[in-house]
Amino acid sequence: MQLIHLMLLLFFILAPTTISQTLLQVTQNDGLNEPKPPNLMYCESWRLAVETNNAGDWHKIPHRCTDLVKEYVNGQQYITDSKVVARHAQAYAKTIVVAKDGKDVWIFDVDETLISNIQHYAIDGYSYRSKVDNESAFEKWALSAKAPALPWSLWLYKKLQGLGFHLVLLTGRKETHRNSTEQNLISAGYHSWKTLILRNSTETGKTAQEYKASKRAELVGKGYRIHGNSGDQWSDLLGWPEAKRSFKIPNPMYHIP
Amino acid sequence: MQLIHLMLLLFFILAPTTISQTLLQVTQNDGLNEPKPPNLMYCESWRLAVETNNAGDWHKIPHRCTDLVKEYVNGQQYITDSKVVARHAQAYAKTIVVAKDGKDVWIFDVDETLISNIQHYAIDGYSYRSKVDNESAFEKWALSAKAPALPWSLWLYKKLQGLGFHLVLLTGRKETHRNSTEQNLISAGYHSWKTLILRNSTETGKTAQEYKASKRAELVGKGYRIHGNSGDQWSDLLGWPEAKRSFKIPNPMYHIP
Repeated sequence: MQLIHLMLLLFFILAPTTISQTLLQVTQNDGLNEPKPPNLMYCESWRLAVETNNAGDWHKIPHRCTDLVKEYVNGQQYITDSKVVARHAQAYAKTIVVAKDGKDVWIFDVDETLISNIQHYAIDGYSYRSKVDNESAFEKWALSAKAPALPWSLWLYKKLQGLGFHLVLLTGRKETHRNSTEQNLISAGYHSWKTLILRNSTETGKTAQEYKASKRAELVGKGYRIHGNSGDQWSDLLGWPEAKRSFKIPNPMYHIP
Repeated sequence: MQLIHLMLLLFFILAPTTISQTLLQVTQNDGLNEPKPPNLMYCESWRLAVETNNAGDWHKIPHRCTDLVKEYVNGQQYITDSKVVARHAQAYAKTIVVAKDGKDVWIFDVDETLISNIQHYAIDGYSYRSKVDNESAFEKWALSAKAPALPWSLWLYKKLQGLGFHLVLLTGRKETHRNSTEQNLISAGYHSWKTLILRNSTETGKTAQEYKASKRAELVGKGYRIHGNSGDQWSDLLGWPEAKRSFKIPNPMYHIP
């Protein structure tokens, strides 16, 4: 036992630098300098371009990246990326003094923001153009109301409620899907939002960005202060008026203009 | 045997990122399914948060990520990320019909956009707060005019010139550094920009974002059409008026508000 304790102590003291260097010299393979496979490197750059909006109006996951997107959205990196976004959002939210007038608002998108449709997208191997191409299949899935919560969005949602924010859910889903959307959100663990805004029949001609910006303008017009906005699409976040801070939740599966 | 098992367990729990990755590669050698070590995973999420502006006004590379930032900016992923940004920018630029009035403009930032100061930042191990803290050391480095080109920015710069764009260089460097900055840009391979805008003594009180937005407003006021804007800081890109498309070049080393 003494030997084990000594080893433990040594690991805690030395592990960050000395041991790793020594062992790395032995194995001559440190995992960081090692060249990544070209596909993996390219696809990580592609994913970064999507998340930063450098990719602009993209239409399809590059063929050579479909497996990597699948691995990503089913793996731990997606969850960790989402966690870090949620933590940044919470840290910012805590700096805001929430007034008692009920006008301090945080906006959430729904699909791939509050709830995950990965089960649905998995059917086609994540590889088709966008959900727009498969609208009827997506609507059927949406009506089933089976999408689970994205855990770190649910975490942030509850933290924001605890801080006193009024939560506005703003989705491109159609007004005709209100019941199934509410049912899905509730069964995923979301409660007590201030309002759920869906797209009505007169708004179907607008892009998501135009539609969502116009809804934010209505909120601002009514005196709401939009402190934060969480969405997986840049079209959830950009366009006048913008929230004071916007939080881009990862989504390498599809793009909505 | 029990001791060996415990040692193995300790390795997986305590050894830093590189070792566990190496060991996992030995056992799985897959590259995709392999779980990443927690530090690497967190630091990739942190870098994504920086690049998407989710991190907001950050001040310091997290201590546990300094080695990874060093590996990144000296490695192939940074180059590939920069290449993919440049390719997206070029693809967009090619869609624009450039008029003969000389008013079609693309803006480039200078530091960590056109030229790389990694040699300077390497001195302090990439770990200090920001270049603002080390302003005199940075100015000394800048006066030496030794910063090399970022190769994919130079590639884009030449492509845009070939397409007929007028190139505006907009930097937070001081007007007093004009000569050394020009000298550095030319020795790095940059030629024939339309104008190089530096910060004059009356503009030192502004944030980079305020200063750069005001300069874009002046350009728009003179009738220039700002089609693209390439910068490594969100403060190069945000604020009214924005370019029609903005391209965020990676920089996990420092943040300028």
